[in-house]
Amino acid sequence: MDLEALKKEAALRSVALVQSGQRVGLGTGSTAKYAIEELGRKLAAGELSGIVGVSTSEASEKLAREVGIPTEPLDPRPLDIAIDGADEIAPNLDLVKGLGGALVREKMTEVQAKRLIIIADHTKLVTRLGEKAPLPIEIVPFGFLSTIERLREFLPGGRLRQPGAQPYVTDNGNYIFDAQLPAEFDARELERRIKGTLGVVDTGLFLGMAERAFVAAPDGVQELTR
Amino acid sequence: MDLEALKKEAALRSVALVQSGQRVGLGTGSTAKYAIEELGRKLAAGELSGIVGVSTSEASEKLAREVGIPTEPLDPRPLDIAIDGADEIAPNLDLVKGLGGALVREKMTEVQAKRLIIIADHTKLVTRLGEKAPLPIEIVPFGFLSTIERLREFLPGGRLRQPGAQPYVTDNGNYIFDAQLPAEFDARELERRIKGTLGVVDTGLFLGMAERAFVAAPDGVQELTR
Repeated sequence: MDLEALKKEAALRSVALVQSGQRVGLGTGSTAKYAIEELGRKLAAGELSGIVGVSTSEASEKLAREVGIPTEPLDPRPLDIAIDGADEIAPNLDLVKGLGGALVREKMTEVQAKRLIIIADHTKLVTRLGEKAPLPIEIVPFGFLSTIERLREFLPGGRLRQPGAQPYVTDNGNYIFDAQLPAEFDARELERRIKGTLGVVDTGLFLGMAERAFVAAPDGVQELTR
Repeated sequence: MDLEALKKEAALRSVALVQSGQRVGLGTGSTAKYAIEELGRKLAAGELSGIVGVSTSEASEKLAREVGIPTEPLDPRPLDIAIDGADEIAPNLDLVKGLGGALVREKMTEVQAKRLIIIADHTKLVTRLGEKAPLPIEIVPFGFLSTIERLREFLPGGRLRQPGAQPYVTDNGNYIFDAQLPAEFDARELERRIKGTLGVVDTGLFLGMAERAFVAAPDGVQELTR
């Protein structure tokens, strides 16, 4: 099977955990897309009923509507389960997320989920976070150069996400600084320090949140737990 | 003199500290307005030259232009001085700011100022922060009810700022939660905890930032230093 077929297979495995009547956090990105489509299919086929989706991005919200998943905005009630992709998965299931730009909405939604299920392909497995991907940090547009300078005091390198003439803008109207993680760091301490920096909204570090991951590899879908 | 005349007098005292060629942070609110007007007057009168203003809000930017102060957006260079009002002033010049809604832009600008000068009337003097005013906390609109619930775990009470049918929206496109401060707290610890809360952009606590304050009182303008 090619990688796309395997990612889809991982998505099906994650949606198999969803039960009728549950409130489900809907992730963002190319793998989460398969999960949303499968959830819509199961609802249409009558294999599931009474599902309410809570979207982590405007893109996921649009897709959920297209495939017929009733959605509600996030409120303080817990979600039964959330399914999302990740950019890096450490052995303890700590994650880096946010290459898709939805990190803050994803984090705010998924922190309320009783179960966070990650779906990804095997290229996302790392031995330490920051090995392959930058760490996305959502920052306020006002004074962003100053914020980046404050971040670079302890995270040298990195750059503002700017695919064209203008900086990338998140659904929250903010910018993203793609930081370079050092070779060694205490993830919780780094998270606190970044989040505590003036001008930062939040980071793509998802620590201690994921319960399990379905990882598409050439030899099939691997299930990892914390 | 009435209070307005005294506030204006305090503003004149603060602007007397500004020297030609300086980069000046322009505060927001009814007292800061007097300082911006005075700065414009001094430029027009030739008493100052080569001033560049850096505005902390769209309202201040507009006023600065009206009174003829050349402005630049915030960049990482330090400001020589910043002049702004405050909602509460503690004896050590720790401040609560943000009733005007510009707290994040104010903080981002004023943290870069070599000197932060506060102008206010005597009703803003308190023995402890939170005595009279709520603490404004800027929060992301997405999932704001969840963020407020997280804040209320350690800051009971408080409420979303909502002057009409819709929540108040800051220049950054965010909401404001007006928190109620407890009778006793460690300001730096509280600041860390609030800023570290998922969904929070920043708080109206300005700790260790102000160098001096000119306070309008019935018997004249009082000068306080840290």
